[in-house]
Amino acid sequence: MSTLELLEEHIVFDGTQYKYRHESQTLACSMTFSLFLPNKEKFSNPPLLWWLSGLTCTDDNFTHKAGAQKAAARLGVAMIMPDTSPRGEDASDSEDFDLGQGAGFYINATEQPWASHYKMYDYITKELSAIAHGRFQLTGPEFISGHSMGGHGALVIGLRNPERFQSISAFAPIVNPSQVPWGIKAFSEYLGNDKENWREWDAMELLKHDTSKKIPVLIDQGDADPFYEKQLQPAKLAAVADAENYPLTIRMQKGHDHSYYTIASFIEEHLEFHLAQLATNQ
Amino acid sequence: MSTLELLEEHIVFDGTQYKYRHESQTLACSMTFSLFLPNKEKFSNPPLLWWLSGLTCTDDNFTHKAGAQKAAARLGVAMIMPDTSPRGEDASDSEDFDLGQGAGFYINATEQPWASHYKMYDYITKELSAIAHGRFQLTGPEFISGHSMGGHGALVIGLRNPERFQSISAFAPIVNPSQVPWGIKAFSEYLGNDKENWREWDAMELLKHDTSKKIPVLIDQGDADPFYEKQLQPAKLAAVADAENYPLTIRMQKGHDHSYYTIASFIEEHLEFHLAQLATNQ
Repeated sequence: MSTLELLEEHIVFDGTQYKYRHESQTLACSMTFSLFLPNKEKFSNPPLLWWLSGLTCTDDNFTHKAGAQKAAARLGVAMIMPDTSPRGEDASDSEDFDLGQGAGFYINATEQPWASHYKMYDYITKELSAIAHGRFQLTGPEFISGHSMGGHGALVIGLRNPERFQSISAFAPIVNPSQVPWGIKAFSEYLGNDKENWREWDAMELLKHDTSKKIPVLIDQGDADPFYEKQLQPAKLAAVADAENYPLTIRMQKGHDHSYYTIASFIEEHLEFHLAQLATNQ
Repeated sequence: MSTLELLEEHIVFDGTQYKYRHESQTLACSMTFSLFLPNKEKFSNPPLLWWLSGLTCTDDNFTHKAGAQKAAARLGVAMIMPDTSPRGEDASDSEDFDLGQGAGFYINATEQPWASHYKMYDYITKELSAIAHGRFQLTGPEFISGHSMGGHGALVIGLRNPERFQSISAFAPIVNPSQVPWGIKAFSEYLGNDKENWREWDAMELLKHDTSKKIPVLIDQGDADPFYEKQLQPAKLAAVADAENYPLTIRMQKGHDHSYYTIASFIEEHLEFHLAQLATNQ
């Protein structure tokens, strides 16, 4: 396991917010991630929420702007926030905000120049998971959530690992990347033009063919979100869930947009949703 | 009154977060400020909290990072967040983070090159106040709070206007700028070397000679704040308050540092403090 360099440590409520840097073997570059731990005296083996951010974000956006530490401290939930892509001069990039650095899409790229670094799925599900479970001894139940591109990531990673994650939630997720501009652009570059290879990275395809354990999903979508109609289209996922009898709840939030203000408004309810599923399972 | 340009508008909880730009006549430059309004259906004439940020900040830092909208929405408090200095090419600047843009110190400069623009005291207490009271019809009770340099600003503006502000609170304020490096550097530049002219901008001097209405003050200070001993020294203010029988409470917060994580942790208690004083006064 790689060495962790502690970059920041702050008391917040009665928990602690950390930021670390490490050399990722999976991504072949230096990466940062953030971690919130609730008070150890009160919560000795807290459940762990994985939070995946959207296009252009780093691990800082949710950490700084969601105000989630208050609820996580009260409820006793640890939270880990990975960055959204490989970083640095070695990792390929583009001038576009929706391709390259800041736009990893939580997949394993197969096409060059991306395939040498862009393995965010393996990074999160294996390398960073080993750090969370090993170095930080976070061996409790796990949930996954995210926003926009990170909502896509949460859905794909959760649906592909239903034995590991108890539940999934998302804010304004890209539910069907194979069919919308952001996803088509990224998948063409990262995975090539054979759309057969896109299916394992598309939440709608995964839900359609799901034969495994059905873990509950909660989605919040603002009706004033400028990306709602063209890029997100959660109703398509709802229709598949209905047909498959999949436990998916989509809540339309009146007046809410695509910003972190929407995440701040509902993140406490997402944490409570995850804990409620856990209580049901026990 | 100058024209307001709406830059941002977001639903957050059941309130609305705005960001505006306007041409300030007082500062002779273009300025931004942020404003949170609680739900108008529930709170028709909310009290108004003025929030003053610290060195290097803009109106965005508190707005993005303090998570204050949740408590403000629940309690029905409007919040206005000014920028921390004049801005733009015309307004003088320095290469230092603690002088010039981002470091207005909430005073009226008398020395050039600063005096042409650096009139933050008049900007806040007159021009922006007229916008808050007139354009936004915020005519309820008013409180003032801030962080570090903004804690100094809140103390000075509050103590100089005790008939207007019901109460003052601060996080890690500079309580005696005339005697600490940040304040000496800024006051020498903005006010000149005659220290007699500094007294009206120094909270400790104001408290020492206070003969007017005594409005309550709450201060939170982290004991892991790296600026605590050299720049902040709240115990000096506490000693004067004791001698003057002034209603000042200083709370040392264990393990807390100078960051917005400390503000996030206690801002709800500050709002409740201000509302409690209001209830006492009614």
